[in-house]
Amino acid sequence: MAKQKKQPRPKAITPKGFRDYFGAEVDERKHMLDQIAAVYHRYGFDALESSAVETVEALGKFLPDVDRPNEGVFAWQEFDEKDNGDWMALRYDLTAPLARVYAQHRNDLPTPYRRYAMGPVWRNEKPGPGRFRQFYQCDADTVGTASMAADAEICAMLADTLETVGLNGDYIIRVNNRKVMNGVLEVMGVEDGPERDAVLRTIDKFDKVGEAGVRELLGKGRLDASGAYIDGVGLSDEQIETAISFLTSKKIVAEEIKNGPPNPDDRIPGGMGITYNDPEDGSVEAGRAMQWGVLDHLMRLVGNSEVGLEGLKELGEIVDLLSAQGYGPDRIEIDPSVVRGLGYYTGPVFEAELTFEIQDEKGRPRQFGSVAGGGRYDDLVKRFTGQAVPATGVSIGVDRLLAALRAKGRMGGKAVGPVVVTVMDKSRLADYQAMVSDLRNAGIRAEVYLGNPKNFGNQLKYADKRNSPVAVIAGSDEFDAGKVQIKDLVLGAKIAESATLEEWKERPSQFECDRADMVAKVREIIEASDDG
Amino acid sequence: MAKQKKQPRPKAITPKGFRDYFGAEVDERKHMLDQIAAVYHRYGFDALESSAVETVEALGKFLPDVDRPNEGVFAWQEFDEKDNGDWMALRYDLTAPLARVYAQHRNDLPTPYRRYAMGPVWRNEKPGPGRFRQFYQCDADTVGTASMAADAEICAMLADTLETVGLNGDYIIRVNNRKVMNGVLEVMGVEDGPERDAVLRTIDKFDKVGEAGVRELLGKGRLDASGAYIDGVGLSDEQIETAISFLTSKKIVAEEIKNGPPNPDDRIPGGMGITYNDPEDGSVEAGRAMQWGVLDHLMRLVGNSEVGLEGLKELGEIVDLLSAQGYGPDRIEIDPSVVRGLGYYTGPVFEAELTFEIQDEKGRPRQFGSVAGGGRYDDLVKRFTGQAVPATGVSIGVDRLLAALRAKGRMGGKAVGPVVVTVMDKSRLADYQAMVSDLRNAGIRAEVYLGNPKNFGNQLKYADKRNSPVAVIAGSDEFDAGKVQIKDLVLGAKIAESATLEEWKERPSQFECDRADMVAKVREIIEASDDG
Repeated sequence: MAKQKKQPRPKAITPKGFRDYFGAEVDERKHMLDQIAAVYHRYGFDALESSAVETVEALGKFLPDVDRPNEGVFAWQEFDEKDNGDWMALRYDLTAPLARVYAQHRNDLPTPYRRYAMGPVWRNEKPGPGRFRQFYQCDADTVGTASMAADAEICAMLADTLETVGLNGDYIIRVNNRKVMNGVLEVMGVEDGPERDAVLRTIDKFDKVGEAGVRELLGKGRLDASGAYIDGVGLSDEQIETAISFLTSKKIVAEEIKNGPPNPDDRIPGGMGITYNDPEDGSVEAGRAMQWGVLDHLMRLVGNSEVGLEGLKELGEIVDLLSAQGYGPDRIEIDPSVVRGLGYYTGPVFEAELTFEIQDEKGRPRQFGSVAGGGRYDDLVKRFTGQAVPATGVSIGVDRLLAALRAKGRMGGKAVGPVVVTVMDKSRLADYQAMVSDLRNAGIRAEVYLGNPKNFGNQLKYADKRNSPVAVIAGSDEFDAGKVQIKDLVLGAKIAESATLEEWKERPSQFECDRADMVAKVREIIEASDDG
Repeated sequence: MAKQKKQPRPKAITPKGFRDYFGAEVDERKHMLDQIAAVYHRYGFDALESSAVETVEALGKFLPDVDRPNEGVFAWQEFDEKDNGDWMALRYDLTAPLARVYAQHRNDLPTPYRRYAMGPVWRNEKPGPGRFRQFYQCDADTVGTASMAADAEICAMLADTLETVGLNGDYIIRVNNRKVMNGVLEVMGVEDGPERDAVLRTIDKFDKVGEAGVRELLGKGRLDASGAYIDGVGLSDEQIETAISFLTSKKIVAEEIKNGPPNPDDRIPGGMGITYNDPEDGSVEAGRAMQWGVLDHLMRLVGNSEVGLEGLKELGEIVDLLSAQGYGPDRIEIDPSVVRGLGYYTGPVFEAELTFEIQDEKGRPRQFGSVAGGGRYDDLVKRFTGQAVPATGVSIGVDRLLAALRAKGRMGGKAVGPVVVTVMDKSRLADYQAMVSDLRNAGIRAEVYLGNPKNFGNQLKYADKRNSPVAVIAGSDEFDAGKVQIKDLVLGAKIAESATLEEWKERPSQFECDRADMVAKVREIIEASDDG
């Protein structure tokens, strides 16, 4: 037999753009997703778990900014003798699979169908810092109803969710409507097609480049920060003014409220009925005045556009429904500057922003920004069935939301490790195991040190690495006397940190107790450190 | 522009061998995995979530019965200009990724490292009834210690897990040791290599073909049920007797216990010390006698084989440790007929079997069988690092365990749906939403009917499909009077089922109440039906 060539050792690395999650990272995400699921469940949404793998055909191509076939997804061809197997791919979001599931099972599902889904999705994109090719999404959608009550409900549920995970007062949900935008573009004379897409892409940059920047980009173009010249869309001055008036609706209305009604000739009969003597003090009432003022202003802009007026009516319904449930514009507001990248939205679109400041990588303060978004997409199921099926939903960026909770100090405390029963006498392993069993049976997280017990210092280092609250120690003296030593590692760490030992003097960091009292004593220390 | 060819509609189907999980299916699995995670956590195990995608190189080829490269896994090549991209694949289990994670992060992880992992794995195999290409695994492993205490702990934890999910008294965990088997094979004169593999494969069929079948297959061969002749391994009669004596150790020892000690000349000095007057009544004491008797019998069989004696010492340690923690052979027993297919096991192997009967597809009673298994694998990390890293672990078949819980009636009751607030007057949608808000804020799962409200019967059909406990009804009469109608759907269903209406007469299935009392009345009905 020929000598076998020695195989090189495989490299122990994750593929580029993938990562591992350890201990508290997994626990914290799970805790947050459990909280979110509880809210979704209370709203009547049912869990759905579709498989990670779909046919490429069923997934479709709805990723933004992707031109090449299969670009952006991980795809492969099924093995088939004739090289004719189906192409399969990992899902890139949870919406495309939902459309497939609904089309496949629509006769068995209730109508409307409220479902939530949580799980990883995969993107075959160039990884970057903090940008991974597998990440979690957490979606809730209602399929099969055109009622604005479904959109309003999703917004209310998103507000409840953000409050439940601990962001009360730290968010604003902004709502817009594609139909209103399309109405304004119609009035501006911007046709459906490449020009409209270019205008939408430009409007979407409002947050980044501001009013003056958008004005230039809609017109002749502008020099960017690097000195390169960016071509503009080439709209006329009048068109640009309409677009800017649309984008800055909130600012314009705020000024009108302050300075009295605009020229009465500008008002459209049948407007939303804003009263200009509403308070301006930032209260919920002031917010309501803003809300209706913005709708009124938009009514001027959409003129006689049918689609625009329809969109306005929808926004009015959403405001009404949310208001009846107590969600004022301090939590959910109309804001015409929300665009949302995805092309498949057909009506209301929404975005949740966190309003507190964090520091960017250069130490400058900036708003945390978007953590969730969604909208109405009435055509996704139609791809399969030929019949339009109205649907609306929201997707939460799980990693973004976790980062926000960590930034607010709501998460990321060091997790408490298990009690470690150390091993002084290897022949007594069965006795140590019995101790650990007693602790576990009392509901206390505990383990025997299973490494090489020769060096006792290594055992305490291990307990330290595990962030253990307590070490239990017993050698032959203790066994003979029916005793154990209890070492309070939380207190030990505090003493090590503290300059003055005085305050800890009365509490011993290690003491002896009867073996029979071990569980009670360990529990005392853990409960004391939970309080502290 | 040329007219675009109309695309055919995509098919709304899952790829072959994949499926969707709805509502209660997702909730029940999650509930079970949460229970298991709580046990693992109590034992000091930390969560680990590695990505679904690994390099093919890192995954290695450890699937049983797979010869072709990449067979059994879903794999694809990364896009690369030079067609030279890395091959990536979906993980086929949770053990291969653990070996990679440990090798990659070993300097940062505690030693020993106890971790658990739960999640889907993928197999590119021919799907069949109940056999899917994506399914859940749930593993716990201890890496970095050769101590038998780690193996004993895994067995104890598996027992606790099965009891926690509701299978107290319905399982047996059987433990064997590869080293003992290898020792016996050494004594038999069966060399490492193809012959030994063939013998192991045959022994693994003991459950299916029985003692006589194994005897034939180890010898000249046998006719199978279809009449085809299966070639045997070709062992001598003496070799076969030793193998059968090994496999049927429990039966032989049971007879020895009943009939008195065997010929003293057969005893090995330094045997495990079985006492032959132990009880035979099926008690834990009788089980202990069996346990040590089997070890004694195995000692006769391994003779002077060093590896065999080492394996026996390990099994003895496991029995000692488990016994100290109160796990008798009624829950965890030594059984030499356990083989476990995977080639990478190097020491103790274990298998959890459920001992209750179910009916097979032909209505014949059979034991439920295996739901979990594992063992010691000391060489998996070595692939990466060149240094042997001892490890041991267990994997639970999540779908099998769920099926078992459903078979025992511990799961699978119809989940209770949300309260449905029906819509009598579309213009009052905001009022209905306010009702639903009140219910949700009181922690009651509730929703407004968002379908077309025209046909009221459809709304009640919807509530029925959702398994709703209560429907709330309000039209203009109720709104004017500040009232709502409460329809008790649980009671309604009972009345519909029951032949005699007498027993329900006193409880009305629909009644009117003040709007202000709605939440309290709905809660009463839900709580009453929870008790019932």
